[in-house]
Amino acid sequence: MKLTILGCYSATPRALNNTTSQVLEINNHMFLIDCGEGTQVQLRRHKIKFNRIKHIFISHLHGDHFFGLVGLISTFRLLTRETDLHIYGPVGIKEIVTLQMKLADSWTNYKLIFHELSSNNSELIFEDDTVEVFTIPLNHRIYTNGFLFKEKEGKRKLDMDLVEEANINVAYYRKLTQGFDVINEDGVLINNESVTKPGTKPKSYAFCSDTYYKEDIVPIIKNADVLYHESTFLDKHEHLALKTKHSTAKQAATIAQKANVGTLLLGHYSTRYDGLDAFKEEAQEVFANVQLCEDSKVFNF
Amino acid sequence: MKLTILGCYSATPRALNNTTSQVLEINNHMFLIDCGEGTQVQLRRHKIKFNRIKHIFISHLHGDHFFGLVGLISTFRLLTRETDLHIYGPVGIKEIVTLQMKLADSWTNYKLIFHELSSNNSELIFEDDTVEVFTIPLNHRIYTNGFLFKEKEGKRKLDMDLVEEANINVAYYRKLTQGFDVINEDGVLINNESVTKPGTKPKSYAFCSDTYYKEDIVPIIKNADVLYHESTFLDKHEHLALKTKHSTAKQAATIAQKANVGTLLLGHYSTRYDGLDAFKEEAQEVFANVQLCEDSKVFNF
Repeated sequence: MKLTILGCYSATPRALNNTTSQVLEINNHMFLIDCGEGTQVQLRRHKIKFNRIKHIFISHLHGDHFFGLVGLISTFRLLTRETDLHIYGPVGIKEIVTLQMKLADSWTNYKLIFHELSSNNSELIFEDDTVEVFTIPLNHRIYTNGFLFKEKEGKRKLDMDLVEEANINVAYYRKLTQGFDVINEDGVLINNESVTKPGTKPKSYAFCSDTYYKEDIVPIIKNADVLYHESTFLDKHEHLALKTKHSTAKQAATIAQKANVGTLLLGHYSTRYDGLDAFKEEAQEVFANVQLCEDSKVFNF
Repeated sequence: MKLTILGCYSATPRALNNTTSQVLEINNHMFLIDCGEGTQVQLRRHKIKFNRIKHIFISHLHGDHFFGLVGLISTFRLLTRETDLHIYGPVGIKEIVTLQMKLADSWTNYKLIFHELSSNNSELIFEDDTVEVFTIPLNHRIYTNGFLFKEKEGKRKLDMDLVEEANINVAYYRKLTQGFDVINEDGVLINNESVTKPGTKPKSYAFCSDTYYKEDIVPIIKNADVLYHESTFLDKHEHLALKTKHSTAKQAATIAQKANVGTLLLGHYSTRYDGLDAFKEEAQEVFANVQLCEDSKVFNF
């Protein structure tokens, strides 16, 4: 699981700060999460192949999370993309994009498929053989979702000594890796777990931006390997977090601790602060394993 | 007259190329012309005070000319702007901006005044004591205007020897600078031009992007001091210019020559070419005084 931070600052892009956008590589998928202004340039800087992006997840319709979307869609068109593109985001996102395509008389050649979200409950919005994506309903000034990306249980590994000892025909080996019990050459039912071991532990990544402190999300993100949780403010500005429906670093850490996640990533920093160290220090008072997002930083988990 | 090129490439922003946007300073006005994605970052890089921008002119609704507009408007809001902002652009621009403000539940505190354009004739769209702005109807794939910025005739200068000789009361000096004839102390009408000289020669700037070769614009931009004319292609790709309704450098130069402008600026280059020299060379076969726009280049005229 590889996470590339294209941008992790709040509010407005600046000469040295990009607004929210991340690329998550998981099980050969490349998911784009949020798409602030300038995201396409950041994608180019990281030499990320545009055609590998087939699914874009937009948390909410504040500009710092999606003003780069229409430009990216338009650039894909100019580069004669043919691959389908799925967009997941709040109701209204389709109207914004299609209105601009209509007025520019510039329709995409590729298929643009919108999945508009409106539920206040966690929903499964994407699934294939290897990955599932669920929404994480957040609480912000407008309708907002986080996203939980979960690898599915990998194939089980055969313990060859035990498999041979159990006298199982080779034709059943694939069934075994898929977790099924099988009948051996002697007509006896062999319990799967008696001859196989679990595959690679599936990983999960929870992306939560923007939101105020909200414990309701804890059950949804429970035991996630990695949690990105916004931390717009430091503790001394908790009143601003409350007012603008954002979180402090300490609140993000409290969520991480209650959800028992592996690693907490902080981001969506207000640019009012001089450096980022205080975010990490304040979070670590509550939860030990904290890392700071920075623009262009790459995490491997 | 000072022109700052924020971006001058066509199609899509890249790591080292910005799409169209320019700032024209003329007679204490600061006009923003087109606003491709990332324009707000370029404005910051050039330390251009956001509050000095009161008028934004958008040529047409292709993304490389306006995808940065909604972000800029949004950033102005976040920075608690109070100054009115006037937007001039094709019909539809108001709907695009207001739809996004509505869905973000983020209305500006400052007054946002849209001047939607739909005429196919050159119109006066802005005027005050010192400057006039006219549209230049262009011919592109969708409804497009260029803009002609014209200083008004400056105040006349008094020839003090002649003024005193003509026995004119000092109370009339202001009237003289404004070009009026006045009556002297002896009750005789004094012809203005007999005691004054013309003020500073008013300057003009014509911005023409995007368009195919179209001589209709020549009378509108006749004798302009500076003409920016798009030159997306080199001569060998004239067929592409025709197909996409753009111009070659040579066609831009032909317009400059027919309109008898002072200086021709080239821009809106396709990124298919390795360097820009060939644009200048081809244009100079037709018109001598050619300069190349480049991102972040500043011209003083």
